[in-house]
Amino acid sequence: MASAGIGRSIEGIHSVAAALAAGRVRKLFVERKRSEREPLSGLVQKARDMHIPISVVADAREIATSTTPQGIVAECSAVPTLSIDVLAAVGHPALIALDHLQDPQNVGAIARSALAAGMTGMVISDVRAAPLQATAFKASVGALETLPLSVVASVPNALARLKKAGIWTIGLDADGDGSLFEQELLTEPCVVVVGAEGDGLSRLARQTCDVVVSIPMAAQTESLNASVSAALACFEVLRIRQANTPNESQRQ
Amino acid sequence: MASAGIGRSIEGIHSVAAALAAGRVRKLFVERKRSEREPLSGLVQKARDMHIPISVVADAREIATSTTPQGIVAECSAVPTLSIDVLAAVGHPALIALDHLQDPQNVGAIARSALAAGMTGMVISDVRAAPLQATAFKASVGALETLPLSVVASVPNALARLKKAGIWTIGLDADGDGSLFEQELLTEPCVVVVGAEGDGLSRLARQTCDVVVSIPMAAQTESLNASVSAALACFEVLRIRQANTPNESQRQ
Repeated sequence: MASAGIGRSIEGIHSVAAALAAGRVRKLFVERKRSEREPLSGLVQKARDMHIPISVVADAREIATSTTPQGIVAECSAVPTLSIDVLAAVGHPALIALDHLQDPQNVGAIARSALAAGMTGMVISDVRAAPLQATAFKASVGALETLPLSVVASVPNALARLKKAGIWTIGLDADGDGSLFEQELLTEPCVVVVGAEGDGLSRLARQTCDVVVSIPMAAQTESLNASVSAALACFEVLRIRQANTPNESQRQ
Repeated sequence: MASAGIGRSIEGIHSVAAALAAGRVRKLFVERKRSEREPLSGLVQKARDMHIPISVVADAREIATSTTPQGIVAECSAVPTLSIDVLAAVGHPALIALDHLQDPQNVGAIARSALAAGMTGMVISDVRAAPLQATAFKASVGALETLPLSVVASVPNALARLKKAGIWTIGLDADGDGSLFEQELLTEPCVVVVGAEGDGLSRLARQTCDVVVSIPMAAQTESLNASVSAALACFEVLRIRQANTPNESQRQ
């Protein structure tokens, strides 16, 4: 499974700190006038301790790809990715699959929500999808460093493989057949499939799903942001699993 | 209650279309080279039919406050706002109050989620809070044109007033006393109070709340984006009210 070079380019204080903690930084670029003050001075010291080459630059924005590098840019090794078979085998799987989302901020935000909700991994495509670099990592607030990731050429093929491994595939779409809420399949090993902004689930991904559910809304003319839809799905998994395992729920 | 001039400056195709539909546009600025093709030509024709003055400009970005005006900018009358007492009296209240959120995109996104979840209104402050203009309206995808809004000088004072009107005040914070899920008070007339990004609920707002709840997470070290937290709260109101009124639920 290709790593697709996810997270090679990281920018901003929190994102670089998370990449340093993950041991991924290969080279650090830091703005001269900010490098001797906190919080950048702390990151520079940490990089020195790890024997990471450091370059001083006049303006980090000149080498940055995002608009707010906050004086610090890191060249990194890509985040490690896992095969679909490994994601399917870890724990009591609760996965989220992204069907060609275009906005890296949405993908980062979804990773953050998924990790907070205790999802066990995320499946993304490396074609017709958001590049996962500085912007996505910033939106993920560190989650893309730790959430188990699988990068696939075809989301429908990945779903088919997950089904064979005994994992229920649950599509999320505006015109689903049932409600996301109280969906009993979420207590089973499952993957929730989120469609692209605007277009929703692709035809192939939809056909591969065991069931397609919708988020109930007050008016069917309304719509939700893709990262909000995904967050609602992840936390519905957490909610329904806690409700079905009282001891677990009390420990939370 | 002051209107605070919300929505006087609107930019982008979808936002301008929504402001036109709401009858708020006072003057339209449109980019010459895009004005004769759809979708801008349709908006220009609609503005002409409504006898709205139209100015042709070379580059809409020069007069825009956001980065992607898509060739069209509108000067508008402010969106109408309601008093706290009116918000408290309409329907079976399910309100959301924002305690000094700083990011206009978050405020717009929350309005979108609140409208989709059937919340009956939103309370915002006009001090130390995000300006609600082009960026917020774009993120709201039309919701800020229709969601009933109340603009207040002090959120804690507004909460106290809502309490006197028989509305339960439910704070949402990382270290709440109970869980957001299955919170029975959400079935009553209620207002959910969301704190600022990073800081959470202010001390005064927190003291005014009848109860403060948290979103259960897989690990307490994790955090959520303010707009994701707010969306989870709005949809928990919808979910628990549907669960408690089976007939309503079947009609959805």
